[in-house]
Amino acid sequence: MQAEIVTIGTELLLGEIVDTNSTWIAQRLTTIGLNLYYTLTVGDNLQRIIQVLEQSSGRSDVVITTGGLGPTVDDLTRKAVAAATERELILDEQLLKEIQEFFAQRHHTMSENNRRQAYVPEGAQIIHNPVGTAPAFAVEQNDHLIISLPGVPHEMKYLMKNEVLPYLEARYDLKDVIRSRFLHTCGIGESTVGSKIGDLMGLKNPTVGTRAHPGQTDVCITAKAENAQEAEALIEPIEADIRARLGDHVFGADEETLADVVTELLAQRKLRLSVTETVTQGELAQHLSQASKGVETFAGGSVLPTEKNLQEVLGIERQLFEEHGFPSQAVADAAARSARTMCRADIGLAVIGPLDPVAADAPPVYFGLAFADEVLHGASHQGRTGPAGRGWLLHLAMDLVRRHLLEIA
Amino acid sequence: MQAEIVTIGTELLLGEIVDTNSTWIAQRLTTIGLNLYYTLTVGDNLQRIIQVLEQSSGRSDVVITTGGLGPTVDDLTRKAVAAATERELILDEQLLKEIQEFFAQRHHTMSENNRRQAYVPEGAQIIHNPVGTAPAFAVEQNDHLIISLPGVPHEMKYLMKNEVLPYLEARYDLKDVIRSRFLHTCGIGESTVGSKIGDLMGLKNPTVGTRAHPGQTDVCITAKAENAQEAEALIEPIEADIRARLGDHVFGADEETLADVVTELLAQRKLRLSVTETVTQGELAQHLSQASKGVETFAGGSVLPTEKNLQEVLGIERQLFEEHGFPSQAVADAAARSARTMCRADIGLAVIGPLDPVAADAPPVYFGLAFADEVLHGASHQGRTGPAGRGWLLHLAMDLVRRHLLEIA
Repeated sequence: MQAEIVTIGTELLLGEIVDTNSTWIAQRLTTIGLNLYYTLTVGDNLQRIIQVLEQSSGRSDVVITTGGLGPTVDDLTRKAVAAATERELILDEQLLKEIQEFFAQRHHTMSENNRRQAYVPEGAQIIHNPVGTAPAFAVEQNDHLIISLPGVPHEMKYLMKNEVLPYLEARYDLKDVIRSRFLHTCGIGESTVGSKIGDLMGLKNPTVGTRAHPGQTDVCITAKAENAQEAEALIEPIEADIRARLGDHVFGADEETLADVVTELLAQRKLRLSVTETVTQGELAQHLSQASKGVETFAGGSVLPTEKNLQEVLGIERQLFEEHGFPSQAVADAAARSARTMCRADIGLAVIGPLDPVAADAPPVYFGLAFADEVLHGASHQGRTGPAGRGWLLHLAMDLVRRHLLEIA
Repeated sequence: MQAEIVTIGTELLLGEIVDTNSTWIAQRLTTIGLNLYYTLTVGDNLQRIIQVLEQSSGRSDVVITTGGLGPTVDDLTRKAVAAATERELILDEQLLKEIQEFFAQRHHTMSENNRRQAYVPEGAQIIHNPVGTAPAFAVEQNDHLIISLPGVPHEMKYLMKNEVLPYLEARYDLKDVIRSRFLHTCGIGESTVGSKIGDLMGLKNPTVGTRAHPGQTDVCITAKAENAQEAEALIEPIEADIRARLGDHVFGADEETLADVVTELLAQRKLRLSVTETVTQGELAQHLSQASKGVETFAGGSVLPTEKNLQEVLGIERQLFEEHGFPSQAVADAAARSARTMCRADIGLAVIGPLDPVAADAPPVYFGLAFADEVLHGASHQGRTGPAGRGWLLHLAMDLVRRHLLEIA
């Protein structure tokens, strides 16, 4: 059994909107164990839609289309499905009545265009749409099913959840449920992860893959099985193996973020953290305060872009800057101490670097971590500080806290 | 001339990530007048990637692929392009040297896996990637071009902007340029905008449409013409008309953000702004400091989640909280004043609201704006403070500054 998604609309090909429908449908098909092999986007062009539908319904058992069911002339899905399956478009009287009622209930005038929406390919199964005017339908041809849904996300989602997914589950004897586990790591690069678990990356079921993000490498374990329990049972030993190999580089799994993990470790120890940052420009405060236990563990932050700021707001003496330079580990340590005392936190964290560095010869960024007035850790990172660079800095800073908290378990 | 995008990665078919690369590339192809007819996603399966590439390069003049160029075994794009164009994969010594240097500069160890990334289809044109380790390349076969870019968005964007788009523009004689102008407004809802410019929304070329975002409504004017100058000439009078109708609700255009505009107004007046925020949790500091003139105009910020924080860090007297309550306009005014003096800024801005409000009966969020120790403006906003709510608060806060700066022009 294989499925395919076809999203229809020139606005997608002009880049005016992001195709989130495909992502959402893909997630749902995964949970019911229907394999998705392709997604495809085509514009509002009748010939090209027909060609795409012919190819897709030729190779996939289920083709789900979204878009092109509206009331205007450039809504071509009805026509294209009819042509691809060699049928006529016919007026469905029941559907027309429903559309008329939809408008009457809302005291809107129904335009002549809306009548178009009552036409469907002959023999199509109507999927009633109580949340909009665009009716959906399914056409079956040689054991292949084309399901056409509106492109408006909330209508599409409603129909998928309430009609399409239950139907697909009931109709097909879907064996393969798919479950994934994401293990998140930091402090280790993708290629090093790859070399530590390379042998597992050749497995067939579960499969193991890696993904790099700025400052974070994910390992994804995906299992296929008859049901969720069996899938989990396939994942479990591989997960344990990978965790053993990667050690405390693994900071969390699935939906957990590093900020979530840090605030949870803080909450368990009843500690509160405050931060001061230059180069990360408020993102550190934002991540920590918006994390799962942010409200109870984030004790405040300051975003201080300049040396002068650091002297005036945090009261770091000018002499320190003169002796050690800026940025420097000494300034980062002092900033961490000040961040801690200013907000009466248990731990102070500082990320101190130049705000506007030149990529090639920028000085490093220094991290300071202060606990009970003692500076416990220092670290520095040499690298770019653009958007991806900030991702690195945020992870390095939060990981410093995480590793410290694990030590004082 | 027609183009096609192929995004490669099983994570896309599992719905784990949204394909924003296609949208971004589609937008850029539109601006250079290269027609995009299809976008397609395929998983990390060698046979399927090869089939897709054969079909795509058979029907489209330019095929742009993203993803599958990483260092691991499930990165199959190199192999698939080689097979689809009937070439061997060969080691490029120059590329290998660049990858080695990339790691050496960063003092990272290069793993054996990274060597994979130095292999390209024979005869491929290398596209050097100074922002990552995944090299890109282009292969030409029977006048059809396959361009393979990394899937990491910032790497892909860098290579598109600096290499691919200039090359495509120089090589092909592209007609039918599309140009869009986005006018950004705030302080006015989408339906009010719609009623003020409704007559223009029926135009054929340029077309006029609206889009709502939290706290911001955009008007999009899109023209099609033989070249950029003609497209601009179609847009210009309509833009002037819309600007006249919407007045100072229009704060900027295209790539400009409200934060950019605020920092530019500050820079023109040689003023510096500092902020203190509760409910926006660092996002206000982040937007302002990362804006176009952020480095020269952002004087520092504090993220203070609790009443106690505000008292201790900003020195706001407890009495004020007892008399006026929290949150209140009086506390917001005092916080704005403190933000200003603490960071020795010219203007202080405060966004004061409850951090963890219940949606329905949450108290309002108060804004304070202090200038030369005088509180100039106050405002409040009642509404939800989730992600969309924060968008509203950020816009309201920054618009308060913008309107004040326009007055002291």
